[in-house]
Amino acid sequence: MRGNVIVGQSGGPTAVINASVAGVYAAAKRAGVNKVYGMVYGIQGFLEDKVLDLDEYLADEAGMELLKRTPSAFLGSCRYKLPDVWSNEEQFEKVFEVMEKYDISCMFYIGGNDSMDTVKMLSDYAKQKGKNQCFIGIPKTIDNDLPITDHCPGYGSAAKYIATSLKEIIRDNAVYGDYRTAILLVEIMGRHAGWLTAAAALAKDDSCEGVDAIYLPERDFNLDEFLRKVKELAERKKSIVIAVSEGVRLGNGRFVCELDGAGSEKTDVFGHKQLSGCGAFLAGLIQEKTGYKARAVEFSTLQRAASHIASLTDIEEAFRAGEAAVEAALEEKTGMMVTLLRGEGDSYRCLTGLYDIHAIANQERKVPTEWITEDGCGVTKEYEVYARPLIQGELFPIYENGIPKHLVRKV
Amino acid sequence: MRGNVIVGQSGGPTAVINASVAGVYAAAKRAGVNKVYGMVYGIQGFLEDKVLDLDEYLADEAGMELLKRTPSAFLGSCRYKLPDVWSNEEQFEKVFEVMEKYDISCMFYIGGNDSMDTVKMLSDYAKQKGKNQCFIGIPKTIDNDLPITDHCPGYGSAAKYIATSLKEIIRDNAVYGDYRTAILLVEIMGRHAGWLTAAAALAKDDSCEGVDAIYLPERDFNLDEFLRKVKELAERKKSIVIAVSEGVRLGNGRFVCELDGAGSEKTDVFGHKQLSGCGAFLAGLIQEKTGYKARAVEFSTLQRAASHIASLTDIEEAFRAGEAAVEAALEEKTGMMVTLLRGEGDSYRCLTGLYDIHAIANQERKVPTEWITEDGCGVTKEYEVYARPLIQGELFPIYENGIPKHLVRKV
Repeated sequence: MRGNVIVGQSGGPTAVINASVAGVYAAAKRAGVNKVYGMVYGIQGFLEDKVLDLDEYLADEAGMELLKRTPSAFLGSCRYKLPDVWSNEEQFEKVFEVMEKYDISCMFYIGGNDSMDTVKMLSDYAKQKGKNQCFIGIPKTIDNDLPITDHCPGYGSAAKYIATSLKEIIRDNAVYGDYRTAILLVEIMGRHAGWLTAAAALAKDDSCEGVDAIYLPERDFNLDEFLRKVKELAERKKSIVIAVSEGVRLGNGRFVCELDGAGSEKTDVFGHKQLSGCGAFLAGLIQEKTGYKARAVEFSTLQRAASHIASLTDIEEAFRAGEAAVEAALEEKTGMMVTLLRGEGDSYRCLTGLYDIHAIANQERKVPTEWITEDGCGVTKEYEVYARPLIQGELFPIYENGIPKHLVRKV
Repeated sequence: MRGNVIVGQSGGPTAVINASVAGVYAAAKRAGVNKVYGMVYGIQGFLEDKVLDLDEYLADEAGMELLKRTPSAFLGSCRYKLPDVWSNEEQFEKVFEVMEKYDISCMFYIGGNDSMDTVKMLSDYAKQKGKNQCFIGIPKTIDNDLPITDHCPGYGSAAKYIATSLKEIIRDNAVYGDYRTAILLVEIMGRHAGWLTAAAALAKDDSCEGVDAIYLPERDFNLDEFLRKVKELAERKKSIVIAVSEGVRLGNGRFVCELDGAGSEKTDVFGHKQLSGCGAFLAGLIQEKTGYKARAVEFSTLQRAASHIASLTDIEEAFRAGEAAVEAALEEKTGMMVTLLRGEGDSYRCLTGLYDIHAIANQERKVPTEWITEDGCGVTKEYEVYARPLIQGELFPIYENGIPKHLVRKV
């Protein structure tokens, strides 16, 4: 490959988004690329010429090992969408100008649906203008909602965090046994797709009875049916743990987290519209309508940031996705996203592929209807067969001062 | 020691409360005790003759190793207070009746302030009635609020969880750099004592700049000063993370989490009085009074249940506290609690002692005033010197199916 390459990170971080940077770096260096640059704060920083040389951090193995264990986006991220090319061609030209300045022949962009749109626009623009730089997307999202790819790097680690924490919480909740009814709502991320909430099913094994119900946003949520389910559960057991997606909605399309007690729009004590807390709302509803005490826990930021319990499978696949992007560039591909493919057969194997970015950008994949149980309160065995391999293995943190050590950017 | 012994767990669990059960078992077996019983659901279950034989679980090393890694109270817990002895002597007699049935000469009770009151009442009753059974307390509480002992088993692991998770969250919060102001309130347990919230200071090290402010319940909380601090921070940095105890109160004694926007008592959307969510309240306040967007995260149950990231130092000390209780019983002590003593000198060493339970039961120890910085927004270096040794070391979980394996009670 002629010239240098650059890698950027975009959108919400995952526990393993940095492993893909490591994979890009390793493969590019192996291929003899001179400089592997990182864009600081994604395409938004790149437009302002914020670029660093990854040799400064990753030239030694210790840096690579730390990077794989570092949460959040090492390079910084952005939520910046490029404007319409017809109305603002200067921004596009600016991207190519900075690429030329650093003699960059290929840009690797790690992100979700929106970020793949950036890859699409830039590769389309290059083709149209006869520019020969290439643009390759690398998938990442805890939400697991990208189409085409079997799963997304980042999902396995979030799922491992959710399953592990739920297993601990289920145990905690049952500590008073028959002496106390304890109903706990656990609110899990995923506004439109229920992949993360489905991971609650993975808490169940020989040493854990699992959660008592799982509510995904793929199904309409019915408050009466929910209360019936809670009452039915409370008649036969004392410790009840229910996983619920932040994105559950009523049949009329309204988010449950938007509701107040009278079914109107919920505001906080200052009158601001609130779009969080469906777990807290449902706990209040249970108390109001059944008299049982209920409380709520939200995993919140923790589910995307907990590198200390990342899945080794996920780290390795994120790394491999970075490598595969470089291999695609070596073959002069552009406008493609790396995909993860599941090998045939009973034992789990993961391969990589490439797919036209136009089929991926701005698309969203949900949990298949047939993986949701008929009563709408759980997921089927097929989901577990799909997801269990993704949470296997651990890469233990490097501890210093009693806490995990991370790699830090100097700029 | 003649006869058998029993161990029970009481109050809210910690990540290492089971290590003390393991310590009791190991030391008692070493001393030649025939049966080491466990009371199922603490003194409440014991009064109903709920007893198990720990040989069934711990006779092999594998069981011991799993128990040390199992969260929540393995034996089950209770929040049961014995009644006044004058009004209800039957309950006291019942305890001794069950002890005699199983030929139990000593009861070890693992718990916090309230549980030590149970130890006190039972040992006082035995002395008064000329009974020769002995009663020894073993400290446990994530809150670290027991007097006399240097620290409490359970605190180190909760502190390690808080420091690790905060370090990950701080990194996540800064991901958009100068492009976005992000104010995050992290609400930490501890209604009366600020030990857990102080652990936020431990997130700071060479690879983390730490939190921007820490508010403990030991100091009156002033809403105007808080807002001034937030504004001052927001003028010089974009990513702000503030740790706040759930127990912060105004000068008039009112909990911040009780307030609504008009300074009245807060209720949820159904009108129930709410006693949680001071982080969410303060985030709303910031938005209302400064215009900056702010959000809140609560560690909630996770901080006492996260065995997967327990401190090895804490596990070993909890185990050692269990052993020390047995040693005290061998010397026919009663009405005592095991304490942890810090060895002299620069390098951390932890010894055990014994102390009269009367000086401990129902007492509460707070963070010393001199360890809180003058501006009330942080803790001093002395706190870190005190707490950093307690979070050192790890005991990695035994993974199965991608999640930590736990020991399960059959009854």
